[in-house]
Amino acid sequence: MEVPKGKLIAIGGNEDKGTEPEPNFSQKNNLNFFGLQILSRIVQEIRGYESNIEVITSASSIPVEVGQNYLDAFGKLGCKNVGVMDIRNREAAQKPEMLERIRKCEGVLFSGGNQLRLSSIFGGTEFLHILQDRYMNENFMIAGTSAGAMAMSNTMIYQGSSSEALFKGEVKITTGLGFIKDVIIDSHFVTRGRFGRLTQAVAANPSCIGIGLGEDTGVFISEGKYLEAVGSGLVIIIDGHHIRHSNIADLKEGSPISIENLIVHVMSKGNSYDLRSRKFSVETTSAS
Amino acid sequence: MEVPKGKLIAIGGNEDKGTEPEPNFSQKNNLNFFGLQILSRIVQEIRGYESNIEVITSASSIPVEVGQNYLDAFGKLGCKNVGVMDIRNREAAQKPEMLERIRKCEGVLFSGGNQLRLSSIFGGTEFLHILQDRYMNENFMIAGTSAGAMAMSNTMIYQGSSSEALFKGEVKITTGLGFIKDVIIDSHFVTRGRFGRLTQAVAANPSCIGIGLGEDTGVFISEGKYLEAVGSGLVIIIDGHHIRHSNIADLKEGSPISIENLIVHVMSKGNSYDLRSRKFSVETTSAS
Repeated sequence: MEVPKGKLIAIGGNEDKGTEPEPNFSQKNNLNFFGLQILSRIVQEIRGYESNIEVITSASSIPVEVGQNYLDAFGKLGCKNVGVMDIRNREAAQKPEMLERIRKCEGVLFSGGNQLRLSSIFGGTEFLHILQDRYMNENFMIAGTSAGAMAMSNTMIYQGSSSEALFKGEVKITTGLGFIKDVIIDSHFVTRGRFGRLTQAVAANPSCIGIGLGEDTGVFISEGKYLEAVGSGLVIIIDGHHIRHSNIADLKEGSPISIENLIVHVMSKGNSYDLRSRKFSVETTSAS
Repeated sequence: MEVPKGKLIAIGGNEDKGTEPEPNFSQKNNLNFFGLQILSRIVQEIRGYESNIEVITSASSIPVEVGQNYLDAFGKLGCKNVGVMDIRNREAAQKPEMLERIRKCEGVLFSGGNQLRLSSIFGGTEFLHILQDRYMNENFMIAGTSAGAMAMSNTMIYQGSSSEALFKGEVKITTGLGFIKDVIIDSHFVTRGRFGRLTQAVAANPSCIGIGLGEDTGVFISEGKYLEAVGSGLVIIIDGHHIRHSNIADLKEGSPISIENLIVHVMSKGNSYDLRSRKFSVETTSAS
């Protein structure tokens, strides 16, 4: 398998807007934001504060606020070479000046919002092909938070309430932006109690490793396989390769599922995980 | 190890009151109630609709409503031999007529509420000794929902928010009523996203199997070791025996924890689990 030269950072986000109206998240947390620690890691991996980064706010229903918020935060780190690309539809994604910017920058950051907007706007576009190509062949950085993190993989959860998530059919899955395969990424994992929905997604296809990202927490992914936990919270890894029994194929829609033998790891900052060997490590083992 | 002749039914409940004011649970769900399917199983395991059952509402802050609710529900099943014991303090628990009722009945059901009320009112009392003794030596039924389920084991979680539960020290544990050892029972497991808090409790002492009970869902426990899932939802089993790395002992309070290799099973109705061999089974294997 080809080894990508680029890097991914998938971040759990702080709050969704759009398709996932779950209660009890106050307005002040509505910007899908995370601490400077992770933001700082993003630029470190490129060219520090001189890095040319494009923030893609297409997932958000409040792109202006979100974009400004990122400009301010990158500004605090001394980064002045940051742009905001608010692409609202497929037509806008084809514009030559947009393609030019995406060919020129050194990294992108997909904001939070609704991950279906990302897959439906960018799926099959030249814009996405350029990103995929640069990620494979250059030291290119693709970061995403919340919806932007969930859309990174080939298999993308786009709906599924926390409380009903272990009943068959309650978790809806589609194809994401495909920067990485064989993983399913879920965000806001700890606060919103999404263990059930990621479990169902993994049980439906155990070749995928489930990655549950807490708030202000993410994974740095190098060579398409080395995961390193970053940020202040937790990353939960769900490995379905050892499932002995699962009734998901035979059940009627809406029935409770049963699954034997999931392997679960709880990672915090500095811990790492190899997607190929499926080994957890206390120390950081990612290539650098 | 001595094999108890009695049976336990631990139920996930529907809504807590008391120490666990988590948001977004409407008043109509405030009675810690569960469907007639589980209630019916309780009486089936004794002497059907003639069974003499005492409902112990001590955990609740609204004992009159809760008691009436259970009388109505048992009434629907045709059970008329049901009493309510609203013991508010240790003194009331010593009264001879209370001890007499607990010696005479064939089963008890602890309602939901605050599990610390149960341990602090009944811990070390003659009342509790009678229950423990009858459970060990007779076909005696002890049922509990929500707080009443969590208090059944020796190791009892009494506090810990869902969102912060994977930070060290956020999950508070004390000694429960001790009908069963080497398990930790958590309730409202799916809806409230309590995977983190049960994981921390298990990591702190992996000799305990974590049992996470969904709403309107429970486990029927026979011979002190055979678990059978009952009700409409899911039971999550967390087995920490294969943990390879855990940083919980060395961490500072409030730091995120890291744990390698938890084994997790998702059980629905009819599935069973043996606490001694730690084996999941699709079919019911409990002794009958």
